[in-house]
Amino acid sequence: MGEIESSSATIKTGRRSRGGALARRDARLSLALPTFGILKRSLPPMELLDEDAMALIEGNADKVMEEIGIEFREDGEALEMWKEAGADVRGERVHFPKGLCRELMKTAPATFTQHARNASRSVEIGGRNTVFAPVYGPPFIRALDGERRYATLEDFQNLVRLAYMAPAMHHSGGTVCEPVDVAVNKRHLDMVYAHIKYSDKAFMGSVTAPERALDTVEMAKILFGAEFVDNNCVLTSLININSPLVMDATMLGALKVYARAGQACIISPFIVGGAMSPVAVAGTLTQVLAEATAAIAFSQLCRPGAPVIFGTFATSISMQSGAPSFGTPETAQILMGAAQFARRYNLPYRSGGSLTGSKLPDSQSASESANTLLPAMQGGVNFMLHAAGWLEGGLVSSFDKFILDCEQLEAQQIFAQGIDMSENGQAMDAIKEVGPGGHYLGCEHTQKNFQSAFFVARTADNNSFEQWEIDGAKRAPQRANEIAKTWLDNYQAPALDQSIDEALVDYIANKKDSMPDAFT
Amino acid sequence: MGEIESSSATIKTGRRSRGGALARRDARLSLALPTFGILKRSLPPMELLDEDAMALIEGNADKVMEEIGIEFREDGEALEMWKEAGADVRGERVHFPKGLCRELMKTAPATFTQHARNASRSVEIGGRNTVFAPVYGPPFIRALDGERRYATLEDFQNLVRLAYMAPAMHHSGGTVCEPVDVAVNKRHLDMVYAHIKYSDKAFMGSVTAPERALDTVEMAKILFGAEFVDNNCVLTSLININSPLVMDATMLGALKVYARAGQACIISPFIVGGAMSPVAVAGTLTQVLAEATAAIAFSQLCRPGAPVIFGTFATSISMQSGAPSFGTPETAQILMGAAQFARRYNLPYRSGGSLTGSKLPDSQSASESANTLLPAMQGGVNFMLHAAGWLEGGLVSSFDKFILDCEQLEAQQIFAQGIDMSENGQAMDAIKEVGPGGHYLGCEHTQKNFQSAFFVARTADNNSFEQWEIDGAKRAPQRANEIAKTWLDNYQAPALDQSIDEALVDYIANKKDSMPDAFT
Repeated sequence: MGEIESSSATIKTGRRSRGGALARRDARLSLALPTFGILKRSLPPMELLDEDAMALIEGNADKVMEEIGIEFREDGEALEMWKEAGADVRGERVHFPKGLCRELMKTAPATFTQHARNASRSVEIGGRNTVFAPVYGPPFIRALDGERRYATLEDFQNLVRLAYMAPAMHHSGGTVCEPVDVAVNKRHLDMVYAHIKYSDKAFMGSVTAPERALDTVEMAKILFGAEFVDNNCVLTSLININSPLVMDATMLGALKVYARAGQACIISPFIVGGAMSPVAVAGTLTQVLAEATAAIAFSQLCRPGAPVIFGTFATSISMQSGAPSFGTPETAQILMGAAQFARRYNLPYRSGGSLTGSKLPDSQSASESANTLLPAMQGGVNFMLHAAGWLEGGLVSSFDKFILDCEQLEAQQIFAQGIDMSENGQAMDAIKEVGPGGHYLGCEHTQKNFQSAFFVARTADNNSFEQWEIDGAKRAPQRANEIAKTWLDNYQAPALDQSIDEALVDYIANKKDSMPDAFT
Repeated sequence: MGEIESSSATIKTGRRSRGGALARRDARLSLALPTFGILKRSLPPMELLDEDAMALIEGNADKVMEEIGIEFREDGEALEMWKEAGADVRGERVHFPKGLCRELMKTAPATFTQHARNASRSVEIGGRNTVFAPVYGPPFIRALDGERRYATLEDFQNLVRLAYMAPAMHHSGGTVCEPVDVAVNKRHLDMVYAHIKYSDKAFMGSVTAPERALDTVEMAKILFGAEFVDNNCVLTSLININSPLVMDATMLGALKVYARAGQACIISPFIVGGAMSPVAVAGTLTQVLAEATAAIAFSQLCRPGAPVIFGTFATSISMQSGAPSFGTPETAQILMGAAQFARRYNLPYRSGGSLTGSKLPDSQSASESANTLLPAMQGGVNFMLHAAGWLEGGLVSSFDKFILDCEQLEAQQIFAQGIDMSENGQAMDAIKEVGPGGHYLGCEHTQKNFQSAFFVARTADNNSFEQWEIDGAKRAPQRANEIAKTWLDNYQAPALDQSIDEALVDYIANKKDSMPDAFT
């Protein structure tokens, strides 16, 4: 009952005819997962800033770029490129004549397709589309048994498996956790391979060193073919800006590799408001705009037309504890304000996520996550990293949280579709059939529509208090934990061409053999 | 550190100079609560329906009202009034000529002021304002010791006290829980008295019988003076429609009392989508529109110009379990769609709340609550009942949830204020002072602004994992529980004129003496 068309990526457990709590558990754990395609928002994005405010912030950012400038550190080539482009370079500090970066940015595409190895999973980034991608970066994991420990490659692979199965997860992401059991200089090979092998969704590349970015591009060429990669985007990678106003050599190195290969980068000021930017929303937006504009313009110096995403990651500092705090109204304002500038410059926009500082998937975690997720949807985010699985301010990837978040993504995708105004949606026959004082449970329209009508979260318990007690008085994360285990038990890898698989394995083995392990 | 201007309603604990976990706990429990005034949304509401969709639903609702009609049950007077107004009355079924109700609704005010006994607490209902009011109706309580049991008058009084102290709670509400230890036919007297005595915010009246509504009006006259009550709104009360398409005698009786006394009513179809309305958003909106329009028009037959609020309460049914489910994307669409019709007819709008079917304030509770609260804010809700304290689909009032929800209301109020574009908000001096690679923690602008910058939830833990473990590895509801206890420990009642107090106590005693206890 209530099952929706099964996706090709999933299977049914085949359990039948059990009563009471067990039947309900089976229904919850059933792997008849709904199928979601692309997420195209039916509503225009909300606009927080009026034209006067936009112009004021843009003018201030121009001043910051011209008078203060931005440092491009330990990268003589980058400085040379800026000189040639007409910037005023003093030491490592680049001062930008007004409008230079805006002009350079114009060659970046407003939307682009990132191809997945399964063509039906390719994502279009920009416009009214939103692409959800998993958590990125945590060194720790909350394992399925509840333990909090350093993450391993096996955890990484399991998170990729879950993201592959999750109905509204459009993208496989990148560093879904840090597999710290693998040498630092080699783990990128295993991470990229895991995305290719255990999923058929689009994925991200390594940015921790230029040579690792090159490895990513080479592996993509094995998967997609060299010519296809030269002419199409198959990678989207994350380039953080060292706010305030610094581009470091590592990020510049990776950015150059990807941009020159015609691959996409997300260029994101990484802001803890009050520490890396002013304790004020408009001031933070000014700095974000200056930083993002300069780095995006640089990507176009590397290769005009290279796909690029205007990014923002903003948390605010708790002035009591000095710790970053998440889901605050100010960070939602920064997120939505920066989105308006991305649209002003015809660029796809990255922000949002299910962010929280909480240590467990409790009510703090859920409130903070919603307070970023919903503004991100309404603000018009095109690429949402950290959409599921993030805990503890990004220190921890959590399986339970991943499942909980994924349901929220499904709900957002349904909301974004807008209201069905068809004859069936209008349901006039049902209203006539039922009449005053009746009920709709058995009417023809309900019978016809009950399987697809009204979203129900798999982890939600809407039973009576008494039934909930009989079922073990569980909190939502416990139900999520059961689901994560069931999904992994029933995971089936998408087919991968054997010759490609072997070529990838060879490439990785050769690379690993060519260098000693490094753990820092 | 980090304290904001103290409200007159609150006091400081005076604790000082303790280190580590104790200092953090003190900071969290500090009663230096911020002061919030009215909530005026800086953004226009989101519009889900375009004009074509609005016209289609309106036309369908017209057909429902004319061809199917709405039952006004066991109230001959109401049927006579409708005949006189030009409706086609057949038995208890009233059929409305197209446009009749829309015409009648025009005398209702677009905005009105509900006066509080403390004039600075009076609320304006309509326009861009949002008024938050507590949970309404639960017979059960999750007590401060965690026990789930029937609610008592003491629980009721304590919830009124918390609502009085909560910075972003604008209204004292009505049946914040059912005090089941008091006779059914007398408890309204104690409830109204508790709102008057333990708070100075605006409140709601009894609707469970016409004579109880009359008692409420009489008590309001003792508090405000009879003439003032005749000429001003001092009560807003909740009239639910028995969907589909039925007005029952109880609700009609209370509506007539309040409307004729010039007091406000919220007229709300109470919808479990799929049971009391079609399993479709557009169909549900059609029914909601027909019901609300007819009942609002009836309020204007009672007294043209009586203040009235267009209300919607919508949950959707889980087709798996038959239970109502909350925070679904469909209910958010119903909420926002109905808001557009309220604006179309220049009426204030009620919906939203921190609704959940969860049994505990866990992540399900927080996600579902946010998924109603945020759409309600963006959809332009003017009066939000159930804004804090609701659990278990409205069966339970919870102290812990109340505190957690109130923080979310504070965050929404800050977000709604919009972005500060002043020179201080632009923070250009700070960006210059800090420069590339610096940090803002010690800069002059941060020093000047840290006390008011960036919202931090009192129940949020943003410390390190290690510190959180040392502090007891608590979940957010445990921290909320501590706060609720501290608030109640430090509660001080607002002054109430002694002669008024005595007159109220006399009125209640006389009324109670005049009738035997009834418990059904």
